[in-house]
This record gives sequence, structure tokens and C-alpha cells, in this order.
Amino acid sequence: MKHLKISEAQRVIFESVAQLDAEQVSLEQSLGRVLAQDILANRDLPPYDVSAMDGFAVRSCDLATSPATLEIIEDIKAGDMPSMTVAAFQCARIMTGAPMPTGADAVIRVEDTLEISANTVQISVSVKSCHDVRPKGENMRDGDVVLTAGTEITPGVIGVLATVKAATMQVYRRPRVAILSTGNELEAMNDPVDPNKIPDSNTYALMAQVQALGINPVMLGIARDDPAELEQYLRLGLNYDVLLVSGGTSVGVHDYVRPTIEKLGVSMKFWRVAMKPGHPLAFGVMHRAAKVSEADAVQGAKRTATKAYLEDRQGSEHRATQQCAASDAFVFGLPGNPVSSMVCFEEFVAPALRRMMGNPRAYRRTVTARLAHPVKMRPGRTEFIRVQLSCDDAGYLASSTGTQSSGVLLSMARADGLLVMPSECTGMKAGEQVTVQLLDGTSFQEYTGFKE
Amino acid sequence: MKHLKISEAQRVIFESVAQLDAEQVSLEQSLGRVLAQDILANRDLPPYDVSAMDGFAVRSCDLATSPATLEIIEDIKAGDMPSMTVAAFQCARIMTGAPMPTGADAVIRVEDTLEISANTVQISVSVKSCHDVRPKGENMRDGDVVLTAGTEITPGVIGVLATVKAATMQVYRRPRVAILSTGNELEAMNDPVDPNKIPDSNTYALMAQVQALGINPVMLGIARDDPAELEQYLRLGLNYDVLLVSGGTSVGVHDYVRPTIEKLGVSMKFWRVAMKPGHPLAFGVMHRAAKVSEADAVQGAKRTATKAYLEDRQGSEHRATQQCAASDAFVFGLPGNPVSSMVCFEEFVAPALRRMMGNPRAYRRTVTARLAHPVKMRPGRTEFIRVQLSCDDAGYLASSTGTQSSGVLLSMARADGLLVMPSECTGMKAGEQVTVQLLDGTSFQEYTGFKE
Repeated sequence: MKHLKISEAQRVIFESVAQLDAEQVSLEQSLGRVLAQDILANRDLPPYDVSAMDGFAVRSCDLATSPATLEIIEDIKAGDMPSMTVAAFQCARIMTGAPMPTGADAVIRVEDTLEISANTVQISVSVKSCHDVRPKGENMRDGDVVLTAGTEITPGVIGVLATVKAATMQVYRRPRVAILSTGNELEAMNDPVDPNKIPDSNTYALMAQVQALGINPVMLGIARDDPAELEQYLRLGLNYDVLLVSGGTSVGVHDYVRPTIEKLGVSMKFWRVAMKPGHPLAFGVMHRAAKVSEADAVQGAKRTATKAYLEDRQGSEHRATQQCAASDAFVFGLPGNPVSSMVCFEEFVAPALRRMMGNPRAYRRTVTARLAHPVKMRPGRTEFIRVQLSCDDAGYLASSTGTQSSGVLLSMARADGLLVMPSECTGMKAGEQVTVQLLDGTSFQEYTGFKE
Repeated sequence: MKHLKISEAQRVIFESVAQLDAEQVSLEQSLGRVLAQDILANRDLPPYDVSAMDGFAVRSCDLATSPATLEIIEDIKAGDMPSMTVAAFQCARIMTGAPMPTGADAVIRVEDTLEISANTVQISVSVKSCHDVRPKGENMRDGDVVLTAGTEITPGVIGVLATVKAATMQVYRRPRVAILSTGNELEAMNDPVDPNKIPDSNTYALMAQVQALGINPVMLGIARDDPAELEQYLRLGLNYDVLLVSGGTSVGVHDYVRPTIEKLGVSMKFWRVAMKPGHPLAFGVMHRAAKVSEADAVQGAKRTATKAYLEDRQGSEHRATQQCAASDAFVFGLPGNPVSSMVCFEEFVAPALRRMMGNPRAYRRTVTARLAHPVKMRPGRTEFIRVQLSCDDAGYLASSTGTQSSGVLLSMARADGLLVMPSECTGMKAGEQVTVQLLDGTSFQEYTGFKE
């Protein structure tokens, strides 16, 4: 079977997934979502020329001779309207954001002034017209498109939304995601410890990777290697927008996932990807027409409800899913190996989920770093090495988190990022420049990292 | 008044704030939290030597002559225990993760084998002992400390927690944060549009900045420039761990925040920081003994409940706060200017909140970039320029988001990061290397950014 390149596999996925429909959310719930509508300014801001400083509104021409002594004729707070006109050698005390009085054309900040009496101020600096005045409409003009559909809602964007009084807005809805682990060897969280079994970590690592994208997944539990049980779980899972199945998709004779899922109407675009850790990886699409009927799904849900370990922090979201989503369902068959499953999620599932949420930024941010030590490599597959990042004057230094066995999840737990070794590489020396994908949890660092 | 350096102001804050007490959370709610306990392995993993591949468990010595034809004596699935011993020129079909049978010492993956009948396989490769075998305890050994207190809970860490069956764990609790805007000029979200007023964006931008750290803040609303009203709001706000007050802390004569807050028992460590945008910025501490009494606080809450725009997505968290927190309260007086307020939050409030949550990584991650255009600068204050990042073969390119007026919030909404211009800098040329702090919402990019 041909090994696809990572970019080829990503292209196959992106040809299938599209942004989901829009929904209305409140400003308080909008962080991290993506706008599905343009946002217009609803007024000029500032609504008039305003002071940029706490100080005195003056006529700049009065300051030509220094020091100038000016009469204070009024006191203008932010939120007040000025009542007087500033004439020659007069000024008004003014607060940041307060409207400029007629006659005045500049502001002198209070630090540059000397109040010599309650109604007299001495100013020794001279400024040009408009100094420290923010002109009407500098921020935005009524009717301007201030934010376009497709914008990710960051805190800065929320500030702008509040500025135009957008209490609610259309955003692309989040995909509903279900997670299923498979395998007789797995021990569920609530099971007693059995030394002959392997605790199911994939359900939770995947849960967290999905949560990190702002989505609360539903965890279906563990399906044993039994075609009937597997079918029951898969039927339930296909009722969601995205179903993540870990384990059971390799070439072993006991893997029932692939045939069962195809039987349920999923068109599988199986592949092996030339990456390490990674394959086997499977991707399939169930088009709407072929989707399990609502009745079937609800029946399936009832049948498994007592067995499945359903976890849903947003009950209403779960119930909505039970009512059947209107778009295609996508299935990712992920490796059973914990690290491989997480890396495949990062490279394929996260970009797909981000795309479904309407975000043009689908991939993890990358930084360049120097290798702290040599790395051996057998060319042929792109390798992802779990690394920690440290920083010195020359920038980032990347060091392996230790054993890179794909069974050792601690190497992932300790990682700041994934160092990407290109497939044709035959190894790298200490000090060579490399690319590192930042992982979740690394948007902060222990040092400011800049020079004041 | 002396202008502190940014690092000096940060030091003052870090001398006051400490990590909060611990609380128990479930694995499902633990993402982004920080462990307040060490986590021990509860068994050896893998519990025995297991196969790293789907294939055949063999005696490596049998493969010395190629091809070797071996009898398949058993079929071992993951979760099964082998029942037979592999003797000379025998092998067992084995799945990834399944226990190695006695006698076998290596695994040949199925792709490198040829099944010539139902119970005979031909193998043409030769391998060393232990090939594709994961030894017992490779992942972790019973009793090992696998995660230490102070570890941020990322998806990889959650995988490890699930592996040791940690269904709940101690984490540092999140600070309870209240947000207050001040100023007569402000128009609340629910008020009708008044062209003479300025919509209150700071409440929401700060809300989102707090949310981005995983904390649901309580928004107290807008206090008018009236000492009695301000006192009522501040009393309420001081019942939280952290109170963010925007506006009203500058040197203008109408600023009542400082005297009122001191009257309420807060020891203010005011400063001006040598940064742009930024000052004025205030920081104060109310020690526990001086804290407003519970009765006072509840009374205050009742008085303002009808006026304050209380927003709390976690009702229970809010109620807990009403019962009064056990630690010191911290007050940040932030500039009224929207961009200044957000930048001060990033440089001072976010690190403090991260520290309170027990996270050693307090500061935003930085990347190096080249300037896309020259930047003028008047030395004396560290400047933060809002920039967008693009990427070419030589790395990141930083371009200004446009007007850098601190009133223009759109420049922040469009920014990927804050370019930090050191205070002694007199300007920079296009192409010069600069440091950029990544902002929230930039942990993803539009391109993979690596070479396969």
C-alpha cells in the first residue's frame, strides 16, 4: 500500500471537510470562535475630537512664546460636553477621552504643566495643532466593516465587538466529536487495576486534545474486539460530526473496525502516511444520505447507554447531537499507540476540526530552534521528535524529551513541541537549525524572552 | 514620580502573589490546570514484554538462515495471555501490545513476512534479540513519580494521568477575578447608543483575556465617577482574589479610584512603568486581616446587584466567592485606554494570574522575527508594537497592524503579537531581528510551516 505524504493526506481531508453552519452566540461565549458574518461599526469613534491625555486643552498658537500663562475656563471630564469656547490665552482642564472644546486645537499633558493658581496654569512647551488630540472617527467610522467573516475571536476582537455593541453574533458552530477506544487489552478508568491489562489513556488524551480546541467531546468508552459490540458503538459514534476511533485499524487479523465501519455506509479513504510515529491512520466520510437514520441512532444510543462511558460536560450539546447533525460525518481511525494517536491528532484531526470551525489557521504554530544534540534518522518517513525548548541569546534550543518509543506517553507529556525531521534527512548535528511545532500548553514560557 | 522598568514592576507583583490553595478536580476538568501533588505510577507498564508491532513473535536465532520457514503455533491478541512456548522454528502470530510468549525474543512485523499456509510463515529478514519488543516497565515502573507538582496539565499529561488511573487530582485553584470599568463617559452593553458616549469595551476585552487563561471572571459593570458609587463597587470587587479596575487611576483630579481603594484597606504600590502603551498602572494588596467582612461584602453585593451587570458562567464559582476567599486580594488599576489596558494585562495581570494558578510559565511565548519595514522610536520607554506575523523561508516577518494609537483597538484585534522595542532603541531598519510576544489566538497558523 502506498504511503501518502503528510501534505497529501491533509489535502484528502481538506477536500472533504468544510466549515459547518453558523449559530448565534453571546459575546461572553465567543472567545476562540470564528465569525460567520461581517461586523459593521455602528457610529463614529471617537464621536468627536477627544483628548488623548489628562491635561489642558489649549490653542497651540498661544504657546509660541514660552512660558505661556493661560486662564483655566472650564473643567471637562470624559462623558461631559464642553460648554465654553476657548479664546486667546485661555484653556480648559481636560481628561483623557473628553471632547475638545471649541477653540482649542491641542492638549498639553498635565505632567508638562504647572498650576500656579486654581484658575491659572503655566505651560513651557510648544506643540503643533492636533497634538495629543484623537480625531473624530480615528478608531472607526459609522458603517465601516470592522471585522470580516472568518476572523478568529481573540480578546482584541472581543474588545472591538463590544465597541460596536455586538452582544451576540453569528459564528461557525463547533463540530460534535465522539471518542471511541477499541481493544480487549484496555482497562477503563472505572475498572479495577488488572496487571494484565493496559489502562485506556487514548480516550483521555484525545478528549484533552479536543478540549484544547474549545470542543467538549463525548467519550463513548471502550469497544471490545467483537464485531457486534463494535458495530453498536460505531453506529452511535456516527451520529456525531466527527468520530475518533483509536486502535483497531491496523493490518492485524483481529481488526474489525474497518469492515464494520464500511458496512455502516462510511466511504473509507484509507492510507498509510510516511510519518513516524503515525501510521496506521484511516479517514472516512459518511455522506448525509447514507447516514444512519435518527431512529437507528437513538435506538443504538439506548442499547449502549448502560455500557458506554458517556461523559458530556454540556448535556444540551449532547442532546442536540442525539437529534442528528445535518452535515456529513467524518471518521478518523487513529493508531492505538498513545503517542502515535496524539501525533496523528495534531497533524490531521486538529486541522480538520479547526477547518470545520471556520478557522483559516488550521496548523500548529512553528518556531525555529537549534538542535541541542545530534539526531540519527533513517530517511523515508517524516519523523516527529518530542522536544523541550529552552532559550538562550541565540534563540530556542530543542532537546529530545528522552526515549522516543511511541508507547512512552511521558515523552509527549514532557514535550513543548514536535521537532519535524524531513523525510529525506539522514540525521542532524548538534547546532543545526530545525523546525518545531508548538504543542498545546506552550503559549507561555518561564521568562519574558525580551530585552526592555 | 519614578518610572519603573517592566521587570521591576513584575518583581513587585511577584513578591506579593503566590500560588493559591489546592482543590480536587476530575480528569475531565483538569486541562490547563497545574498539579498540586506528585503523581505516582500504580503498576509497571507495559506489565510484561509486549510486541511493538502486528506480526510474528519469533526466536531471533531461527532467522540466521534466510528465508526461515516457521510454524505458527498460536494467535496472541492484545489482552490475551499466551498459552504455549515458542520452540525452535516455531512462532506465534501477535498483535501490537500483546504479551510476548515464552521462548520468543523478537517480533517481525507482518509486512516483512509471507504466510505460505494457515500455520506456516516465511521470513526473509534477520533481527537481533528484542527487535520490536517493548520491555516490561519501559513506559513506567510501579511507584515511580511520573509527574511532579507544578506540572501544567496538557493533553499529554492527561494521557499519563489516565494511564495511572488518576480520575481526580489536586490542582491549584483558579483565582476568582472581578472586572470593573469606571467613567461617566462609558456606555454599557445594554444601554441605548448615545453618540456622546464611549462604549465600554474594556470590560469585555479584559473578560476575554481572563477567559483565555481558563478563568471565568465576574463582570461588575461600570462605576460612575462618584465616590459613593465607586466605593460600593470596589467593596464588592475586593471580595474576589483579584480585582481589575480599568480607568480612573491616572493623575486627573476626577480620579477617585485610588483614594477610595486605599480607604477600603488596600495597600497601593502605585507606579508608572516605562512602557508604551501602558502607564498609568496601579497595583495594590489587601491583606486578609484588613479584608472587608463577609457581612459587609454580602451587603455590598445586595446593594449593587440590581445595578451591576453581573455575568458569571459558573454560578457555583460566583457563590463560592460570595462566601469570601481565604487569601489576600489584589487590585490592578489598568489604563482606561483600550489598547493600554490589554497590553498591561498581558505584561502584568496574566503573569500574576498564571503564578496564582501555580504555573511556572508566567509569560507569553516569544518568537524572533524580521521587521518588514522600518520603525521609528523615541528612546526612554519600552514600546509594544502590535504586529502581524507572516512566514517565509527565512522565518517570521513582522509588520505593524497600522496606526499604533492606544485608542485604536482594531490594531490589537488584528495583531498576532506584540513586537517589543527595547527602551534604549532609537529606531530599527527593515530586516532587523526583533522579538515578538505571541498573543492569544496565535497558537495556530495557516501553513504547516515545516518541510516534510
